[in-house]
Amino acid sequence: MEVKEITNRDVDFAKWYTDVCQKADLVDYSTVKGSMIIRPLGYAIWEQMVAVLDQKFKETGHENVQMPMFIPESLLNVEKEHVEGFAPEVAWVTYGGKEKLDERLCVRPTSEVLFCDHFKKIIHSYRDLPLLYNQWCTIVRWEKTTRPFLRSREILWQEGHTMHATAEDAKKETLQMLEIYKNFQEEYLAMPVITGKKTEKEKFAGAEETYTIEAMMYDGYALQNGTSHYFGNHFAKAFGIEFVNQDNKLATPYQTSWGTTTRMIGGLIMTHSDNNGLVLPPKIAPWKVIIIPIGDVSAKLTELEKSLKENHITYKVDNSNKTPGFKFAEAEVKGYPIRVELGARDLGQNQVTLVRRDTLEKTTVSFEDVLPTINILMDQMQKDMYDKAKKRRDSMIYQATTYEELKDIAATKPGFVKINWCGKSECEQKIKEDTTMKTRCLIEDEAVDGNCIVCGNKAITKVYVGKQY
Amino acid sequence: MEVKEITNRDVDFAKWYTDVCQKADLVDYSTVKGSMIIRPLGYAIWEQMVAVLDQKFKETGHENVQMPMFIPESLLNVEKEHVEGFAPEVAWVTYGGKEKLDERLCVRPTSEVLFCDHFKKIIHSYRDLPLLYNQWCTIVRWEKTTRPFLRSREILWQEGHTMHATAEDAKKETLQMLEIYKNFQEEYLAMPVITGKKTEKEKFAGAEETYTIEAMMYDGYALQNGTSHYFGNHFAKAFGIEFVNQDNKLATPYQTSWGTTTRMIGGLIMTHSDNNGLVLPPKIAPWKVIIIPIGDVSAKLTELEKSLKENHITYKVDNSNKTPGFKFAEAEVKGYPIRVELGARDLGQNQVTLVRRDTLEKTTVSFEDVLPTINILMDQMQKDMYDKAKKRRDSMIYQATTYEELKDIAATKPGFVKINWCGKSECEQKIKEDTTMKTRCLIEDEAVDGNCIVCGNKAITKVYVGKQY
Repeated sequence: MEVKEITNRDVDFAKWYTDVCQKADLVDYSTVKGSMIIRPLGYAIWEQMVAVLDQKFKETGHENVQMPMFIPESLLNVEKEHVEGFAPEVAWVTYGGKEKLDERLCVRPTSEVLFCDHFKKIIHSYRDLPLLYNQWCTIVRWEKTTRPFLRSREILWQEGHTMHATAEDAKKETLQMLEIYKNFQEEYLAMPVITGKKTEKEKFAGAEETYTIEAMMYDGYALQNGTSHYFGNHFAKAFGIEFVNQDNKLATPYQTSWGTTTRMIGGLIMTHSDNNGLVLPPKIAPWKVIIIPIGDVSAKLTELEKSLKENHITYKVDNSNKTPGFKFAEAEVKGYPIRVELGARDLGQNQVTLVRRDTLEKTTVSFEDVLPTINILMDQMQKDMYDKAKKRRDSMIYQATTYEELKDIAATKPGFVKINWCGKSECEQKIKEDTTMKTRCLIEDEAVDGNCIVCGNKAITKVYVGKQY
Repeated sequence: MEVKEITNRDVDFAKWYTDVCQKADLVDYSTVKGSMIIRPLGYAIWEQMVAVLDQKFKETGHENVQMPMFIPESLLNVEKEHVEGFAPEVAWVTYGGKEKLDERLCVRPTSEVLFCDHFKKIIHSYRDLPLLYNQWCTIVRWEKTTRPFLRSREILWQEGHTMHATAEDAKKETLQMLEIYKNFQEEYLAMPVITGKKTEKEKFAGAEETYTIEAMMYDGYALQNGTSHYFGNHFAKAFGIEFVNQDNKLATPYQTSWGTTTRMIGGLIMTHSDNNGLVLPPKIAPWKVIIIPIGDVSAKLTELEKSLKENHITYKVDNSNKTPGFKFAEAEVKGYPIRVELGARDLGQNQVTLVRRDTLEKTTVSFEDVLPTINILMDQMQKDMYDKAKKRRDSMIYQATTYEELKDIAATKPGFVKINWCGKSECEQKIKEDTTMKTRCLIEDEAVDGNCIVCGNKAITKVYVGKQY
């Protein structure tokens, strides 16, 4: 890959983002409009995310299954709010080979109706509950404008779908999965997130409550990085799912669904990366270390590789015949957390230079100290990246007490704004029209005292608003 | 799950197969015609297969990527033989939301054209070769009649796509992947396979050579369980893919593709399972052990679980309030390799009963010997299952020296038949029409002496023929 210049992040953030995506070989555009190609490094990052999340799902008792990718139109139509939310943005299959289908099929935009259709057949007794399923798959939403990882016609994701005997159990599950997402994003992606309930207007089509994970990107825009929905028993009723409860009576189960996507990769990039390219938190980087040999260092290289392997530290070696300077730049573009410069001259003095990707700080250590230093630097880097992102995010959260103030912030300062709100969709809509800001989520843990900054009526809650991807 | 009776395997093999698939909770039929639901146990088996194969692919230098799932009609049309082979069996998307598409898109039936389209953009120099990619995804082929795992409109699979500087390198890759498939199926699935080249008539649409993995099922039918294709540079030429070689001249690269699918799960079932349900080779079983506690054995159960965990032996415990007899039957249906009957009375005499799923043989050991015995039994079981399957397969391979003899075998004996063949498609076609047998693969390592058993002209090769799934 030829390392062309990456647009300056503070000059044109949107261009910087797509430059990083392409220069780091994360994605390529395809001739299939609206679909992207996920290249090896991009896919390897997704594999890391999948591995960690999948383990967390299994540890909490979830099982993976695979549903069909097509939904017959009549099945999509069973739940009214749901179909109204999704029908405008699905891809329709109308022909199989040369034959026109009797009923057209959409490519799943999400799989609630498919799971409900299955649940109806397999749920009979309280002994069958809770039923805790998850699916890793690709969904399709017919987006008009697309951007790598952020908005695409095809999305790689996981979708959990669970059924419970009581509303309480289902609500507990909804919040448990929200917490798993939050912990994963903060601990592994070093990405501080705000969690909370979506407003009526912004919730998922068909859900009773939608909880969201909201991260703030470098430019102050919000990225919704995962959602967890509580459905009550709407879908179960629409699909006629019933079970015999412990009192031997027929009852309707309660449902959740929750999902995260490759969008998290976009979030990673827009939180941590810089003008030199990709910056990956060590805990999610597919390869933690890049070794750049300079001169004849084959004996020491073999020794270092052996020690990295034994300690399960993934790495790559750049053995190409490019210049060291070129290799350094390329290693920076691709975001390896630690660069090990293994130079013949330095080794003569038993020295090795290590470079942290986030700060580009150099550390010179003796050869024997390379491995422990890598571990120390990675731990420090993971922590520093989170702290830096959190400090920046916190510095871009404002409070507006009047509508004028909100409009002023929206026009001049990137970030989120906390406001008092009456709970009415009209006020939410007015904010959106005037400022392009949407509500992010309710702030339920802060007492509210005062009036809605839009209409002046009594506020019932505080809420975050912000512009979004 | 209520354990209903499974149809006798020797009375109605087809019904027995679908009974096992359903009773073992591997799949469920969906209301989406032609698509199946893969249930937790079925999907867990697939996850085991994916984990092993993915590691083998990575060890041999392959990288995972993700291509679009849609192929614009014009792109599918680029290679003539390929489109003729696949166009009749694809699903066509014609609408995105309410808008009719300018160009219809098929859901990928395989991704050669998508990879070629990408390769054209990223291959420039001999330094970019070999390019070794793999993709895990779902493909769609509009089949008329479907059966769980064996033939389905949606198929979970992996498809490798590689590009090489020379024909020799590409041929080496084709055979390397064939060998990886063969070793995987023999070592992990305990499924003996025959590998070899397909005839011109049976090869993949657009390939120069197709190599196949052919397993023989319990009923003597063949299951094609994987293929590896050498493309020459047909596609590369059709797509205009060129690179600057080491002599600084423009050259066209050589290509391979290779794939395996969830069909292997069908193969597993039809090779090893019995009238009591699923039988899984220990090396591919998601859970190696099922523990059935009888009476109050909680202290010993905890001790056993700890020891299994420490030794990375996956297991489940049946703590339901069903009778032991019912639990035994269910454990057999679901194919856990080793059943541990942990009974209070037996433990009073420091005894535990272990049962091998394949033979249902019981072994009584002291509690201290449970873990080592599990390991010994699993090793023995893995070996025995392979040997048994191989012995059965070998006993069902016949040799026909006249056409009458072939027709007689086809009518009376299940299995494969070795014949001399002149290499002409007409003779192959005649065999198919008269016997429903198709050629499986060429037998290139055996000298041929004699005439084609169909037309009487000089034979150029021996070939296996057999009925197929």
